[in-house]
Amino acid sequence: MLPRQWLPLIQMALEEDIGQGDLTTLATIPPDARGRFEFVARQPLVVCGLDAVELTYQILDPAVRVTRLIPDGTRAEKGARLARIEGPAASLLSGERVALNFVQHLSAIATITRQVVELVADLPVTVLDTRKTTPGWRPMEKYAVRVGGAKNHRYGLSDAILIKDNHIAAAGGIGPALERVRQTVGPTVVIEIEVDRLEQIPEALAGRPHGILLDNMDLESMRQAVAMIHPHAWVEASGGIRPETVRAVAETGVDFVSLGYLTHSAPAVDIGADWAD
Amino acid sequence: MLPRQWLPLIQMALEEDIGQGDLTTLATIPPDARGRFEFVARQPLVVCGLDAVELTYQILDPAVRVTRLIPDGTRAEKGARLARIEGPAASLLSGERVALNFVQHLSAIATITRQVVELVADLPVTVLDTRKTTPGWRPMEKYAVRVGGAKNHRYGLSDAILIKDNHIAAAGGIGPALERVRQTVGPTVVIEIEVDRLEQIPEALAGRPHGILLDNMDLESMRQAVAMIHPHAWVEASGGIRPETVRAVAETGVDFVSLGYLTHSAPAVDIGADWAD
Amino acid sequence: MLPRQWLPLIQMALEEDIGQGDLTTLATIPPDARGRFEFVARQPLVVCGLDAVELTYQILDPAVRVTRLIPDGTRAEKGARLARIEGPAASLLSGERVALNFVQHLSAIATITRQVVELVADLPVTVLDTRKTTPGWRPMEKYAVRVGGAKNHRYGLSDAILIKDNHIAAAGGIGPALERVRQTVGPTVVIEIEVDRLEQIPEALAGRPHGILLDNMDLESMRQAVAMIHPHAWVEASGGIRPETVRAVAETGVDFVSLGYLTHSAPAVDIGADWAD
Amino acid sequence: MLPRQWLPLIQMALEEDIGQGDLTTLATIPPDARGRFEFVARQPLVVCGLDAVELTYQILDPAVRVTRLIPDGTRAEKGARLARIEGPAASLLSGERVALNFVQHLSAIATITRQVVELVADLPVTVLDTRKTTPGWRPMEKYAVRVGGAKNHRYGLSDAILIKDNHIAAAGGIGPALERVRQTVGPTVVIEIEVDRLEQIPEALAGRPHGILLDNMDLESMRQAVAMIHPHAWVEASGGIRPETVRAVAETGVDFVSLGYLTHSAPAVDIGADWAD
Amino acid sequence: MLPRQWLPLIQMALEEDIGQGDLTTLATIPPDARGRFEFVARQPLVVCGLDAVELTYQILDPAVRVTRLIPDGTRAEKGARLARIEGPAASLLSGERVALNFVQHLSAIATITRQVVELVADLPVTVLDTRKTTPGWRPMEKYAVRVGGAKNHRYGLSDAILIKDNHIAAAGGIGPALERVRQTVGPTVVIEIEVDRLEQIPEALAGRPHGILLDNMDLESMRQAVAMIHPHAWVEASGGIRPETVRAVAETGVDFVSLGYLTHSAPAVDIGADWAD
Amino acid sequence: MLPRQWLPLIQMALEEDIGQGDLTTLATIPPDARGRFEFVARQPLVVCGLDAVELTYQILDPAVRVTRLIPDGTRAEKGARLARIEGPAASLLSGERVALNFVQHLSAIATITRQVVELVADLPVTVLDTRKTTPGWRPMEKYAVRVGGAKNHRYGLSDAILIKDNHIAAAGGIGPALERVRQTVGPTVVIEIEVDRLEQIPEALAGRPHGILLDNMDLESMRQAVAMIHPHAWVEASGGIRPETVRAVAETGVDFVSLGYLTHSAPAVDIGADWAD
Repeated sequence: MLPRQWLPLIQMALEEDIGQGDLTTLATIPPDARGRFEFVARQPLVVCGLDAVELTYQILDPAVRVTRLIPDGTRAEKGARLARIEGPAASLLSGERVALNFVQHLSAIATITRQVVELVADLPVTVLDTRKTTPGWRPMEKYAVRVGGAKNHRYGLSDAILIKDNHIAAAGGIGPALERVRQTVGPTVVIEIEVDRLEQIPEALAGRPHGILLDNMDLESMRQAVAMIHPHAWVEASGGIRPETVRAVAETGVDFVSLGYLTHSAPAVDIGADWAD
Repeated sequence: MLPRQWLPLIQMALEEDIGQGDLTTLATIPPDARGRFEFVARQPLVVCGLDAVELTYQILDPAVRVTRLIPDGTRAEKGARLARIEGPAASLLSGERVALNFVQHLSAIATITRQVVELVADLPVTVLDTRKTTPGWRPMEKYAVRVGGAKNHRYGLSDAILIKDNHIAAAGGIGPALERVRQTVGPTVVIEIEVDRLEQIPEALAGRPHGILLDNMDLESMRQAVAMIHPHAWVEASGGIRPETVRAVAETGVDFVSLGYLTHSAPAVDIGADWAD
Repeated sequence: MLPRQWLPLIQMALEEDIGQGDLTTLATIPPDARGRFEFVARQPLVVCGLDAVELTYQILDPAVRVTRLIPDGTRAEKGARLARIEGPAASLLSGERVALNFVQHLSAIATITRQVVELVADLPVTVLDTRKTTPGWRPMEKYAVRVGGAKNHRYGLSDAILIKDNHIAAAGGIGPALERVRQTVGPTVVIEIEVDRLEQIPEALAGRPHGILLDNMDLESMRQAVAMIHPHAWVEASGGIRPETVRAVAETGVDFVSLGYLTHSAPAVDIGADWAD
Repeated sequence: MLPRQWLPLIQMALEEDIGQGDLTTLATIPPDARGRFEFVARQPLVVCGLDAVELTYQILDPAVRVTRLIPDGTRAEKGARLARIEGPAASLLSGERVALNFVQHLSAIATITRQVVELVADLPVTVLDTRKTTPGWRPMEKYAVRVGGAKNHRYGLSDAILIKDNHIAAAGGIGPALERVRQTVGPTVVIEIEVDRLEQIPEALAGRPHGILLDNMDLESMRQAVAMIHPHAWVEASGGIRPETVRAVAETGVDFVSLGYLTHSAPAVDIGADWAD
Repeated sequence: MLPRQWLPLIQMALEEDIGQGDLTTLATIPPDARGRFEFVARQPLVVCGLDAVELTYQILDPAVRVTRLIPDGTRAEKGARLARIEGPAASLLSGERVALNFVQHLSAIATITRQVVELVADLPVTVLDTRKTTPGWRPMEKYAVRVGGAKNHRYGLSDAILIKDNHIAAAGGIGPALERVRQTVGPTVVIEIEVDRLEQIPEALAGRPHGILLDNMDLESMRQAVAMIHPHAWVEASGGIRPETVRAVAETGVDFVSLGYLTHSAPAVDIGADWAD
Repeated sequence: MLPRQWLPLIQMALEEDIGQGDLTTLATIPPDARGRFEFVARQPLVVCGLDAVELTYQILDPAVRVTRLIPDGTRAEKGARLARIEGPAASLLSGERVALNFVQHLSAIATITRQVVELVADLPVTVLDTRKTTPGWRPMEKYAVRVGGAKNHRYGLSDAILIKDNHIAAAGGIGPALERVRQTVGPTVVIEIEVDRLEQIPEALAGRPHGILLDNMDLESMRQAVAMIHPHAWVEASGGIRPETVRAVAETGVDFVSLGYLTHSAPAVDIGADWAD
């Protein structure tokens, strides 16, 4: 079952690239010409997003066949062949750039996520993403994070509670904010509250949230926060964490570290299309 | 006149983030509470995308007012205030992340573009983007490139001809490819052809294209190519050009340098929301 | 901030009713005629859905003004005036049936929900809805349940885990199912598991779910289940519960009772439009 | 030829239920697991809506096969098997609730319609529906009414004329209203006018409508109205008619009885999914 | 109340013309420049479609103001000013061609319709359109026909019955076809049957249709047909009728003449935009 | 690869014609009846648009098979069979009118285009279309023009520059207008400027546009303009050119003649559906 939630963005990508038709291909490629190419890793990477390649060509021309040569989540070396695409040459050419743009961006996220996960693999911590995703890409980028080996924080504003400073201020304090939330949502909604000072923790715990987010705290404060919070709630560290700082944060004993970096700063990876002669 | 072409992606971004409603805000923010915050540069950058902020809130709640404090394309120092957003507090909070995600990504592209443009500002060369854009974002990213001071290569496959090696092979050579293109398109379509060896240039010129793209050539070959091509056509250099290599390429005398780097590798910039007390 | 999530269904409702235009109104109502009518309760009810009235007329004709006379969630007696609608007479007439159809259906759900909630108001139990909603209406019907005083179970399949017998069977047992779920989702997702026999409870508890759903158990079994489960997880009773049986179920000590009845069997309520002379 | 008009609502229903993916199924069901279940009547009913089951799974996963075991419109006893659904187990589970929600609602309407039709089967009267349908569901509910054995009143405001009291008042009387309508529409539009007093009938007949609707009249007035109107036009009785009153109304000699009850008050019917071991 | 049914086509027209932006206007028109122009008839015509002008600019830029100088349906002489459009100069220029394309096409239809109607104005006949409309344009073209003074035949396949030869053949004859139709549809659907030979008329009349369509009959046959059919049903003549033949057909005594010519062959009319100095 | 860009209009056309279902066909055609018909030219024409026939039936019912009997662009004599359509009889009938409406309109444009092209076939001139297309139809009509043997002028406002008098006035003259355009667009955008007087040509040439459009000039002026402009730019003649005047214009030596006539005034051609017995 292909991820139908990805279709709107793929449709949009094809429309913006192909517009009223691929003039060059229409002029130069005979309608009955067939072709074949392979997507090849031009550098080591964790492959992700071959479903997007398949969906791109499903929309463009059902006569194109996409064969995965490697499953999503696999570490591929430079030169590794990721997928084979074959069919009408005109369709292949018209969709190549869009398909590559998808798989490169998603593989970039999976690759950096895998690196971050491995940096803390021996610690009892789970790496999470954030809502700092590329607009329009959330279902895809959250998937790439999972493929990379991390887990997803909430998908968006409607599937979990995260009480931040503005909510606390408007509600009149941590206690009232947690109380109002608890009166509103049912048992299937997780409640997390953000604190940036240790003094806030006792009041937060009194409201019995599932978890507490430590926002931009220094390492020593995080350590103390963990001691105060466990085992009453789980602890998440967030705020400006990068690959080079994630291990130190993880060593404070927090249960979760979340990084916007995974989705807004993943270094581009290079994937090319090699045509069969 | 706001760019209506941006609406579908902004709509999609709001839907994916807000889903069935911002549970935290619904529970904690009184419906009649009002608020105000400003977007502030947390680092030096070239600001871009304030129209996206305005459109985000137009869709979400027309009662929100967005005031630009600085025009797109301006270089902002760390701490510079970019825009003020005020209105119903619940609406402000629900749209904050989406609006920030847009303006950060677009400012990142404008910022790196400006840096690249300045690296070659004293040379008779024009910096261009490519079709290696984030799927779904082409109208926005092409705009950010212009805001950064570069120019756009073709928007997509339907507004200009770019004959690549696969087209040449399928058409039976450079000459036949140019001939077929010329028979197909009218006078409002620019014709460019890609070559990767100097030997291809005479045949290319014989087909009288508007421009010739030098694909991944070394610097010395580029210099020779320019000498062969001028003044019969303009010359574009492309393929793996990065900020650290752009000047050397430009010094070969090419008319245009195009960089996928501008749109797929722009380093993230940090913009925050400061709430009024 | 009106609920924009309701717009697609309201748009669809207007299109299916008005089609290519209201022939009768076009023929008989002068374009410049103005009018006014009020929605009036023809029986006691809990009013719900006036936002849908406002959105209906916003789409149809922005010149129509809708004034709420009573807030959603209020108990209205027979004859109570709920909202006043005034503006171009042709627009009023063309939208009347759609607006009434919305507010009647939503008020029906709020009304029965309120009745069920009051039947168990003195017990430490919370009434919940289910996913047995009218297709296309989930955001609206979930809202009507809240307006009626109950809380929402999960919105859909992507915002919480509910492991049912088929999932258990496919995963190879309760333990493996809970283990696989725990490895997949992050900390913001609540995990609930369904059991239909007391013997399943120890294994379920060993997997540390947030809650356990008792599916179609008899009252005595529910009582025993509560004793086994508390305080390790919360307990939900579900399966064929109706207004006449809800109290007995609640008295078993379960934390939550969920009723598909609220959304698929709410008795219709009658609301009429009284035109001003 | 499946009813493509149903697709938008089915698409909407899947989106609202599945959202960003069925978390439980993704975590517990192996991608290559296959399954099979049957929809089974848990009570006597008239089956309706199996096309919606097929369309639901066509959208979700074309690899699922739906086999009707009984045609729409058939009376099914408790325990009767209605359809078999087989294919990838994950897809089956993810679509089960939506498919059931559709077929239960449509079968409920077909079932009550059949009962009403049979109550007056020996009389020269035809049972009709109204525009009091569930918003978004009109094409489906009108179909269910036909499957139940009744006929459809007009689909919406654009395919027939029904002049009500507000139109009469605005046009300056019954005569002018009919005159204006006749000047506007062509020969393919049926003209009906609503009266609530016997005194209005002569003027109505003078305008030569195809039919006259008696709105909320008592039985004796209906009898007299029929005598006045036949054979010059057909007669429809409407307004608050319920299964328990429909026969008395029909015995007055009217040609048509229309009941909003069929679509807004059909008692829920129970259909379950039995999985194959 | 503007015709919202027209919006999808207008939206599509703007997208296809403006695409990613009006390059020329963006480059040459200062953002704060304002302008004004008037649509002027370059030949005598019946004006139609000014709502499309208003909707075009509403979508493009709400800051543009459209003032009708003449109502739809008015006969305008050469040089007559039809509407004034003023606002941001860039928006005016970007929408001019689309707005003109709409109003020219609709005025062309209204103009030829008016001419045809006047050719038979003294006869007891009504001019009708057909379903031979420009795909995508039916709501607009049906409106233009009414503005021109004719009436609409059915809007499409779902709002009236028209039994043609293929239906007759499949149903096993005229009688069975009419019988099956009568068993299927309710009282709000008009039934018309097409005949092409006089011998078919008695069987057709026996089925009591509302009307009979004479398909491509010669004038003498039409006369005889009218004599056979009146007063049992109304009579429509159709099939290749043109302005030069319409009067002869009308004189046969038929009640209706329908012409595809009105919508598929209306001669273009010329409307220009005169800019204020 | 069928032209997916045509789908939205075809979808719209089917919705407007079929609406809630083809009542006549539903009532008279047995669900299992199969049929076959052929589209036949009722007059000589250049066939165009068979892809639209195929797409129409793909949307309506994938069980219908469309076989082209003649390729687009072929000159067909009266009686020539263009395509065969076979499958479920109900689907064939429901889609027949829409499919015919498409292929007639597109063939009309291809036919008149071919005639115009042949009128100037021995001259070194190329026939072009304009933006005076039927709103919603641009991708189809531009295709029909190509099928007819002419070439396309720019697709819309975003793929080429055409500077008209209003742009010149706003920019402060021909020179400044060309300068601003050149500073804005990249090398893939063709620049054309419109002049209506010979005196404007020197300043226009100084700005080095790719082409110059002569707007509504008399023949003698055109001849002089060509002499002034060649070989510095290409020359297009435009403005009110019709089949009867195109040759004289072409003989002035212009490179291109563009005619709105091709798309807004193509005389209707007649294509019928012949059913197999």
